Amino acid sequence: MIKITLPDGSVKEFAQGATPMDVALSISEGLARNVISASFNGTTVETSTPLTTDGSLILYTWNDDEGKKAFWHSTSHVMAQAIEEKYPNAKLTLGPAIANGFYYDVDFGDEKFTDADFKAIEDRVLEISREKHEFKMRSVSKAEALDIYKGNEYKTELISNLEDGTITFCDHSNFFDLCRGGHIPNTGIIKAMKILSVAGAYWRGDEKNKQLTRVYGISFPKQKDLTEYLQLLEEAKKRDHRKLGKELELFHFSQKVGQGLPLWLPKGAALRDRLEQFLKKAQKKAGYEQVVTPHIGQKELYVTSGHYAKYGADSFQPIHTPAEGEEFLLKPMNCPHHCEIYNAKPWSYKDLPKRYAEFGTVYRYEQSGELHGLTRVRGFTQDDAHIFCTPDQLDVEFKNVIDLVLYVFGSLGFENFTAQVSVRDLDNPDKYIGSVENWEKAENAIISAAKDKGLNYVVEAGEAAFYGPKLDFMVKDALGRSWQLGTIQVDYNLPERFDLTYKGSDNELHRPVMIHRAPFGSMERFVAILLEHTAGNFPIWLMPEQAIILSLSEKYEKYAQKVLNLLENHEIRAQLDNRNETIGKKIREAEVQKYPFMLIVGEEEEKNGTISVRRHGDDGKSNQSMTIEQFATIVQEEIDKTLKQF
Amino acid sequence: MIKITLPDGSVKEFAQGATPMDVALSISEGLARNVISASFNGTTVETSTPLTTDGSLILYTWNDDEGKKAFWHSTSHVMAQAIEEKYPNAKLTLGPAIANGFYYDVDFGDEKFTDADFKAIEDRVLEISREKHEFKMRSVSKAEALDIYKGNEYKTELISNLEDGTITFCDHSNFFDLCRGGHIPNTGIIKAMKILSVAGAYWRGDEKNKQLTRVYGISFPKQKDLTEYLQLLEEAKKRDHRKLGKELELFHFSQKVGQGLPLWLPKGAALRDRLEQFLKKAQKKAGYEQVVTPHIGQKELYVTSGHYAKYGADSFQPIHTPAEGEEFLLKPMNCPHHCEIYNAKPWSYKDLPKRYAEFGTVYRYEQSGELHGLTRVRGFTQDDAHIFCTPDQLDVEFKNVIDLVLYVFGSLGFENFTAQVSVRDLDNPDKYIGSVENWEKAENAIISAAKDKGLNYVVEAGEAAFYGPKLDFMVKDALGRSWQLGTIQVDYNLPERFDLTYKGSDNELHRPVMIHRAPFGSMERFVAILLEHTAGNFPIWLMPEQAIILSLSEKYEKYAQKVLNLLENHEIRAQLDNRNETIGKKIREAEVQKYPFMLIVGEEEEKNGTISVRRHGDDGKSNQSMTIEQFATIVQEEIDKTLKQF
Repeated sequence: MIKITLPDGSVKEFAQGATPMDVALSISEGLARNVISASFNGTTVETSTPLTTDGSLILYTWNDDEGKKAFWHSTSHVMAQAIEEKYPNAKLTLGPAIANGFYYDVDFGDEKFTDADFKAIEDRVLEISREKHEFKMRSVSKAEALDIYKGNEYKTELISNLEDGTITFCDHSNFFDLCRGGHIPNTGIIKAMKILSVAGAYWRGDEKNKQLTRVYGISFPKQKDLTEYLQLLEEAKKRDHRKLGKELELFHFSQKVGQGLPLWLPKGAALRDRLEQFLKKAQKKAGYEQVVTPHIGQKELYVTSGHYAKYGADSFQPIHTPAEGEEFLLKPMNCPHHCEIYNAKPWSYKDLPKRYAEFGTVYRYEQSGELHGLTRVRGFTQDDAHIFCTPDQLDVEFKNVIDLVLYVFGSLGFENFTAQVSVRDLDNPDKYIGSVENWEKAENAIISAAKDKGLNYVVEAGEAAFYGPKLDFMVKDALGRSWQLGTIQVDYNLPERFDLTYKGSDNELHRPVMIHRAPFGSMERFVAILLEHTAGNFPIWLMPEQAIILSLSEKYEKYAQKVLNLLENHEIRAQLDNRNETIGKKIREAEVQKYPFMLIVGEEEEKNGTISVRRHGDDGKSNQSMTIEQFATIVQEEIDKTLKQF
Repeated sequence: MIKITLPDGSVKEFAQGATPMDVALSISEGLARNVISASFNGTTVETSTPLTTDGSLILYTWNDDEGKKAFWHSTSHVMAQAIEEKYPNAKLTLGPAIANGFYYDVDFGDEKFTDADFKAIEDRVLEISREKHEFKMRSVSKAEALDIYKGNEYKTELISNLEDGTITFCDHSNFFDLCRGGHIPNTGIIKAMKILSVAGAYWRGDEKNKQLTRVYGISFPKQKDLTEYLQLLEEAKKRDHRKLGKELELFHFSQKVGQGLPLWLPKGAALRDRLEQFLKKAQKKAGYEQVVTPHIGQKELYVTSGHYAKYGADSFQPIHTPAEGEEFLLKPMNCPHHCEIYNAKPWSYKDLPKRYAEFGTVYRYEQSGELHGLTRVRGFTQDDAHIFCTPDQLDVEFKNVIDLVLYVFGSLGFENFTAQVSVRDLDNPDKYIGSVENWEKAENAIISAAKDKGLNYVVEAGEAAFYGPKLDFMVKDALGRSWQLGTIQVDYNLPERFDLTYKGSDNELHRPVMIHRAPFGSMERFVAILLEHTAGNFPIWLMPEQAIILSLSEKYEKYAQKVLNLLENHEIRAQLDNRNETIGKKIREAEVQKYPFMLIVGEEEEKNGTISVRRHGDDGKSNQSMTIEQFATIVQEEIDKTLKQF
């Protein structure tokens, strides 16, 4: 008999050789129907793998990431089978599951695989799936494996790097593939499958190697799931921040200025400024002080901070001076500069905490292939701040930072988020800098703050950086995609490296603790996420322009101008479109520009001193006539819905 | 007879050999008494030099810069004589006039020349001066000159580089010196002289050479002038922005971050932000749009703009990437980035002018020896903007920019300024890019704008840049020192280089004109000048903190806090000093921190709901008791005195 420990801590006994599926059946038939993958003692196994020792077992269903991974990896096998049948000369290479679906890299030789070929493969995948083939692992000797894949230089290379005795194949139907394992019980549960795209991909990601065809696909246990996913993809395409950024004239990339270096156009710069002012105002109330530091620093500064040793070789190279032999670096972080500001004068415990905030632009090299709109750039502005406090103040400071982060999320319409607290690996105490006492203080402070603020959080042991524990927020956007936003990081390292001190009540010098934090993360990435989350329909308080006045004809210019002035008095940001164009055209263009309100003025409105208010996205049937004062009240109500007092 | 043309255009005849002093005498005895130097056909001459050809003569008095130069240069001779008498082994090198006084670089050999030795030299200078020695030039052959200065390697080096036949000495008393000329008639008019300081200076400014002793001095025609000048120096020392910046905790330099790279401390950053918001607000009204651009650009960008060819070798060197072989430069200017923003979409003449503004931080290498506080740095933030307009719009745009600059000067208390219009050298038309028609348009636009706005301006032919005419403002500070602030520059060059276009009403593509302008110039330099101009007593609207509440004892904390809240409601920025310190100490510290108002609260005030208001710099005898409302009115009146509506 063997003892199997389940995630809830319960232990069950089974005959040696029982499979994960047997365990599932022993719990409930319903679970057995849904279980599609498993891990035993931290290693992925098949649901049919016989268990021979005591150990911990986790059973996965479609609702787990690991379950999806097995589902997609398995579908990748089926797709490879379909491709091999149709293209007998194609050479298979690697086909892993990814965050959304899977891919298979194929060398199609002289043949081409294009959009037109997708349907036939999809149909065949579903046909094979319906035959309910089981996935079965088997061991193969290295010699045999090499013999089987003779003529396929890719698999040959993979096998050559494996140790004899560890090589396994996976069979299903009449297809086999070199594979480490981790499959669903049988192909029958694959009910929907779609090839999403093809792209070129170098073998092993090295541009010196041959370019293969990467076939991206996705599959689901229900047709409905696929339909929904494709709709989501369609919506995501519409909301792509690069597309919206261009349409709304927010930012621009110039090849002459350089890749990954955004130019913020007037509307984008205004949006960004509004976000900055919003955070500055809250930070001022929370006791932060703004500072301004240069975008370069001597190389020595980053040698001191440790950033040079860690990132120097992979980032922008040092800047030399024409004389005097000095070396500078573009700053990859603001923290060393803020440490030097702290060091500008001596402090007493009575002065702490000091909270230095800066919208600091930093530069980090990224390969051009990695760049993506505003989410992956080479220069970005962090909404950075560093809190220098005593170890005893960590508790209160952490709570205050969480309050600030939650205020930011709430004001910007992110309501769905979780948090992760990363703490030490207690088995490896030597990995960490700082005293055990301080670590305990900090970890307890974070966990108690997370609890106190009612966060939905998990604690991950061993995930802390060597210099301190941290708390990360994961935010779900309107399309259900997760983004990491808002990090709060404790740091015992830089205070050591920069020899930061304060005089304690005991008249001795002590080390302050540092907290790094950035609710937005970076202005660039945040604006991108916000664009995709809101499809450009920002909370009204943030809208660069909240309303546009559309005159029915140029005749009403004077009245339209008066309305504009009145709106200004009410601090409503508005534009006036008084062009000699049809009202239909004006409305269409205002819709594209996402004005929340269109204020139509003509003879009737001029006579009554009113405006006809049409909301973005409306069909025009519910236009409402009202005075400017009434409109101002509506706008204020909308603002109050999202922008609370901090 | 020869014909002498005077600056007013009048022509007078004189016998050949007449001297400038003869010409002065022929005009008036008063002028002859005051004339101390002259230039003939653009070359400096002695007042005793015989004139032998027709030509233009300018006579200088102490009130002219050229007159002062001759005065100080002549005093330098007398000081050298006194030094040589007292230190027979000292070797004289060079002794020019400078902006304020003169210096002489001396090799004192083994002897030391220190503060203690100043008095004896000063006394001897005045003694010699009273003897009314005339300065007389004489020609000396190269061989003879080398012989005379045998043993003085410095003069020998100077003479070696001169052509035989051009070498002149100047004699006065029993002293002579190698000299090109330009002296006052005789030593008698030197009535006051002071050695200001000594410093080390390498021969020829090259650190590989021997270090000499630079003796700085100044002299005046009246004792009263010297007294005033020394008082000014004393005051300037008190107002030194580096000293005030430290005392007021505005900025800090860290050796680790790097020389010439200021860190703005919280109070300085707040001051700077207030200045930026002030200008942003005015610029918004004036139709500018803010943009944000990165601090680096591809090297190619600056090759296109021409900046690389011009400054590349002397500035920060290119930044290399760890892969992909790209090269970037720290941006020395914002204009190329703004040109690329303009180029982000096509424009019609109806869209112009476009006015892009950015507080853009730029980096330019300066030798460490040239760095000076915030006035000479390696990284600075320009209040930059570029106006892209049609040639016909230049006129209105220029006037609007002048309005903005004058508004800035007025709001910051700079009331004393002149302007210089730099136009083409009509004799060298090939030096300039752009059509003659456009140059005429631009020059006329600038001059008519200057006239229209009632500026006190001069037009300088030949001073325009090759790419366009410009207008510079020279501002006098409270100590009477002149600073160049506020440049408005027309540019025909970058629109060519970046191929900027707009579609005209003729449906053809045209080149826009660019205007560069920066009312502050740079935030760093402007804050430095403002600090020295105001001695830290900024206009009250700009003060980081406008008032400080000083409690007579901790007992009144609650009332003091109430006062603070009331001030906040009135949008008055205030601090509270509720420490357990004497009121005397609190007042002294508040004086150092330059709070415009100290609001003292104690029992009396709490009872009556009032505050006792003491102004910065007062002796406390005129403290006034008033309500918060009354105080708010006073503050508002003070603000309205300087900060007008734009």
